Amino acid sequence: MQMGKVIGLAIATRKDERLVGTKLLITQPISMDGSLIGQPIIAVDTVGAGIGELVIFVTGSVAARAMSKPEAPCDAAIVGIIDSIEGLSG
Amino acid sequence: MQMGKVIGLAIATRKDERLVGTKLLITQPISMDGSLIGQPIIAVDTVGAGIGELVIFVTGSVAARAMSKPEAPCDAAIVGIIDSIEGLSG
Amino acid sequence: MQMGKVIGLAIATRKDERLVGTKLLITQPISMDGSLIGQPIIAVDTVGAGIGELVIFVTGSVAARAMSKPEAPCDAAIVGIIDSIEGLSG
Amino acid sequence: MQMGKVIGLAIATRKDERLVGTKLLITQPISMDGSLIGQPIIAVDTVGAGIGELVIFVTGSVAARAMSKPEAPCDAAIVGIIDSIEGLSG
Amino acid sequence: MQMGKVIGLAIATRKDERLVGTKLLITQPISMDGSLIGQPIIAVDTVGAGIGELVIFVTGSVAARAMSKPEAPCDAAIVGIIDSIEGLSG
Repeated sequence: MQMGKVIGLAIATRKDERLVGTKLLITQPISMDGSLIGQPIIAVDTVGAGIGELVIFVTGSVAARAMSKPEAPCDAAIVGIIDSIEGLSG
Repeated sequence: MQMGKVIGLAIATRKDERLVGTKLLITQPISMDGSLIGQPIIAVDTVGAGIGELVIFVTGSVAARAMSKPEAPCDAAIVGIIDSIEGLSG
Repeated sequence: MQMGKVIGLAIATRKDERLVGTKLLITQPISMDGSLIGQPIIAVDTVGAGIGELVIFVTGSVAARAMSKPEAPCDAAIVGIIDSIEGLSG
Repeated sequence: MQMGKVIGLAIATRKDERLVGTKLLITQPISMDGSLIGQPIIAVDTVGAGIGELVIFVTGSVAARAMSKPEAPCDAAIVGIIDSIEGLSG
Repeated sequence: MQMGKVIGLAIATRKDERLVGTKLLITQPISMDGSLIGQPIIAVDTVGAGIGELVIFVTGSVAARAMSKPEAPCDAAIVGIIDSIEGLSG
């Protein structure tokens, strides 16, 4: 899993039918201090996440397991909302 | 999933028989502002996408799920056409 | 598998129900000399690892195999604690 | 899938028995203009490709599907020969 | 598959029980000329490889197929020993 921040929403009327009704959140990986790193991906929301929230997302074939349609062609899903991070100091 | 722009078409007469009849679109990842990033991949079109369109594509083993032959040796597929993006300001 | 160091713990009250009860360890890849490289990921602990320990972690669909709920939407798991490394000199 | 150029051949007498009889082609990703990018991988040939040819290759678990032994431990396979590329101008 | 050089051995007494008895070889990707590139990974040996040898390794879910316990949580395995490389000149 990776830590990410939801930074946007993608609207796509024409899409695979198993993705209809999903919320497609643009999510960018973050580092330990919360700064944005890497490139944003589109993850299906499965936990009620919203723009601006810090989340846990999975990628690859296991992502679809979190959906109500686990056979969907989906390779990224948000599976948790981060409450807090405890880390090594320094 | 990733956001991408269809930038070309690959023609391949000799290919795995399960890929015959597919449209092989050269697709490059894009950032939030639509600029091309990273390197282009070849994705099977499953939603009627065309050159120049902004799309959602998946990679890995789930890509073949979007095809009419889900057992094809395919690791990238276009599964949606992006209408618009709503994002965080700044 | 990759070598990593556990550098933190993620707390997430709201998450996929198959992840409830798991310990979500923030783990960063390390090089042969133990220095941190790349970006941290969140891995489910399956061997009793703790913050500061050097571990072996797997990513992708096989990660969930190490969990008590192998159908969980999990793409990273700690599967070993590193005792020592023997390497080429120079 | 990715676009690549076959740049070599790997000879390995000792290997997993399900890889015996395969042609292991060293293949490097290419950009739209045909220049080599990234790092070479070893892909099993499934379409009769040869050194110097431009090909389409897949990676990950779907690669083995293209082989005569689909249960082989193979994560990269050449599944097409590129005839031509049509692209956006500029 | 990737070309790599075995550069070390990881010792881990505490690990997933399906990894007990495996040889965990630290393996770093190499370029065509044999120089080390990228970052080392830990791959399960399945062909009797040793430190210093040039090998072929696979990553992802297919890696476990090469093991005697194909249901192990393993994402990297050495599946061949490289005898030689034939390449394009220049």
